[in-house]
Amino acid sequence: MFQFTHHSHRRYNPLTNSWVLCSPHRTQRPWQGQQESQNIAQLPEYDPKCYLCPGNARASGDMNRDYESTFTFPNDYPAVKVDQPEYKGDESMNGLLRVQGVRGQCHVVCFSPAHNMTIAEMPEDAIVPVVRTWIKAYTDLAQVPYVNYVQIFENKGAIMGCSNPHPHGQIWCTESIPEEPSKEIHSMRQYYADKGTCLLCDYAKLESTSEGQPRVVCENPSFVCVVPFWGVWPFETMILSKRHVTKLPDLTEREQRDLANIIRRIACRYDNLFETSFPYSMGVHHAPVDGGDHEHDTHLHLHFYPPLLRGATVKKFLVGFEMLGEPQRDLTPEQAAERLRNCSEIHYKNQQV
Amino acid sequence: MFQFTHHSHRRYNPLTNSWVLCSPHRTQRPWQGQQESQNIAQLPEYDPKCYLCPGNARASGDMNRDYESTFTFPNDYPAVKVDQPEYKGDESMNGLLRVQGVRGQCHVVCFSPAHNMTIAEMPEDAIVPVVRTWIKAYTDLAQVPYVNYVQIFENKGAIMGCSNPHPHGQIWCTESIPEEPSKEIHSMRQYYADKGTCLLCDYAKLESTSEGQPRVVCENPSFVCVVPFWGVWPFETMILSKRHVTKLPDLTEREQRDLANIIRRIACRYDNLFETSFPYSMGVHHAPVDGGDHEHDTHLHLHFYPPLLRGATVKKFLVGFEMLGEPQRDLTPEQAAERLRNCSEIHYKNQQV
Ligand SMILES: O=P(O)(O)O[C@H]1O[C@H](CO)[C@@H](O)[C@H](O)[C@H]1O
Ligand SMILES: O=P(O)(O)O[C@H]1O[C@H](CO)[C@@H](O)[C@H](O)[C@H]1O
Repeated sequence: MFQFTHHSHRRYNPLTNSWVLCSPHRTQRPWQGQQESQNIAQLPEYDPKCYLCPGNARASGDMNRDYESTFTFPNDYPAVKVDQPEYKGDESMNGLLRVQGVRGQCHVVCFSPAHNMTIAEMPEDAIVPVVRTWIKAYTDLAQVPYVNYVQIFENKGAIMGCSNPHPHGQIWCTESIPEEPSKEIHSMRQYYADKGTCLLCDYAKLESTSEGQPRVVCENPSFVCVVPFWGVWPFETMILSKRHVTKLPDLTEREQRDLANIIRRIACRYDNLFETSFPYSMGVHHAPVDGGDHEHDTHLHLHFYPPLLRGATVKKFLVGFEMLGEPQRDLTPEQAAERLRNCSEIHYKNQQV
Repeated sequence: MFQFTHHSHRRYNPLTNSWVLCSPHRTQRPWQGQQESQNIAQLPEYDPKCYLCPGNARASGDMNRDYESTFTFPNDYPAVKVDQPEYKGDESMNGLLRVQGVRGQCHVVCFSPAHNMTIAEMPEDAIVPVVRTWIKAYTDLAQVPYVNYVQIFENKGAIMGCSNPHPHGQIWCTESIPEEPSKEIHSMRQYYADKGTCLLCDYAKLESTSEGQPRVVCENPSFVCVVPFWGVWPFETMILSKRHVTKLPDLTEREQRDLANIIRRIACRYDNLFETSFPYSMGVHHAPVDGGDHEHDTHLHLHFYPPLLRGATVKKFLVGFEMLGEPQRDLTPEQAAERLRNCSEIHYKNQQV
């Protein structure tokens, strides 16, 4: 009989309209390839050389305030800028060479004044201000005329290209609606047109009510955290709002707290999985700020994309076949969810022995 | 005035119908993040412990032949297998949970008996047999009833998940047509329906004849190697057949040699760029073997996806914004092409001082 845990199959991602190949027997192969170095350096609570610590100077020469919870400032090396000429060329210089100018802003959001802190170890009370900072940023940036999308994200860990361990995320906002949210919007619009319901409302309900909840990692009254049926990264998860909410500012006080709650819990489980500071990129998807009506084509959710596969030092390489063919995963989403469910929500560093 | 080398813009990839953000001023930021370790170990020409060297035993217990140019064998840890039950379930178990069974085969192709060789250092004459081996594999696998696509690729370097430096590539063939070729086929079919011409014939001609050839790295009578206008990786390139050819077996003897010629030249330029064994994933895209007519929706080409950005030890991280938003590159394709054009086609190890 065909078994998902033994036989190769592909699963469809209805959000991005793409497929992932699932080869569950592949975890049996021995690994002789590259190992990441594990960063077990003890960091100080304050590092005089860190450009994100309170009171320190940045590359630009500006001084950080003596902040006590979160702190937002413009990225000194932004990928997009306000101050550039409008692109006046033909959008299609030639049928095959198409270009758009992209104005925007890049901001850095420090999550805590403590240099050696991470979301996984922060108490829920300290994550609530992070959620509120995101809400304020979204609301403020929505006012800027040339800003149409606000991408909030965090790169955690050197392996994810993060060059400073001080807990921080980024906000890049752009004139264009980036590829990923744009694909999601397209799929959700199509789904709504076909069925008259919201794709992610339906999916959240399906996962919460499915027998044995095989892909649910944890939940609270407002949010559910699942390993999506179509996840690409070994321990990829998605946090879905249970209520139909299209953007962060629509969250009630209670929901803001519940979001902080579930972010803490999944981040803590990640750290406990391999007893390491678990690297990932995470980010928020929600309604564009382009003035359009996004009631039926967006639904607030967060993605966590962590690279580790077998332990603190062995990641999944999405290379050759994945780049040329299609993404391939080595364990089923249900197996990944079970392993995350078996992890404690008390951080391993704080567990009594 | 708007300048591609100074101002942020996005470029459209007509092959996959997606966009990439280009932020050329970003190369100015200092890099304090993760550095890769450079592998400068001198490898022996024969390693008694390598499972790919001639005459040695593999994980399966099988012995490698005493091969003299290339050698193909079935992967001992295949991601897809022949021997599994057919997936009888509903393809759509629920509108949101869609699954397909995937049968297939995985093979390994050794490029040379020499453990310490790479394509970049191999003479053209030694690469011709690699091309012929691919042609034979494509032709043979096309006969297998449940095989519909033959994905030929190479992961080079530990940073690309390659666990053995012995020069080798892989062939994964599957029942399903993977995501990437499938998107390309879709775009090319659309383009042909709209214009009556082949997208990649038109693009190859555009690049070969454009003034100053700003994105051409090298060419020969049968192939042109370009940094595509929409490339994502810093030094990404694409090799395009000039004649409309849809698959490897259609190449004439002369074209087979010209393909070996251009593969050697681009691989050698890559090594010379940072005077290191340049890591990459590369692979071939061509017509599926599903029995369909692919005359107008495929065009033989190869992609090279190399991760390095600033030197032998600093790669480009496609993380946070790239995973959640859209791919972002730090130098223009024209700048990348110029740097590759300035590299020699004599390997740095063999250059006289
Ligand atoms: O089969 P290999 O070479 O050991 O494995 C490598 O290539 C595969 C195909 O690109 C990837 O799925 C693996 O993550 C990578 O480590
Ligand atoms: O701006 P940072 O954190 O230095 O840079 C990091 O995140 C960016 C956004 O995901 C990526 O483009 C960079 O490659 C990565 O190193």
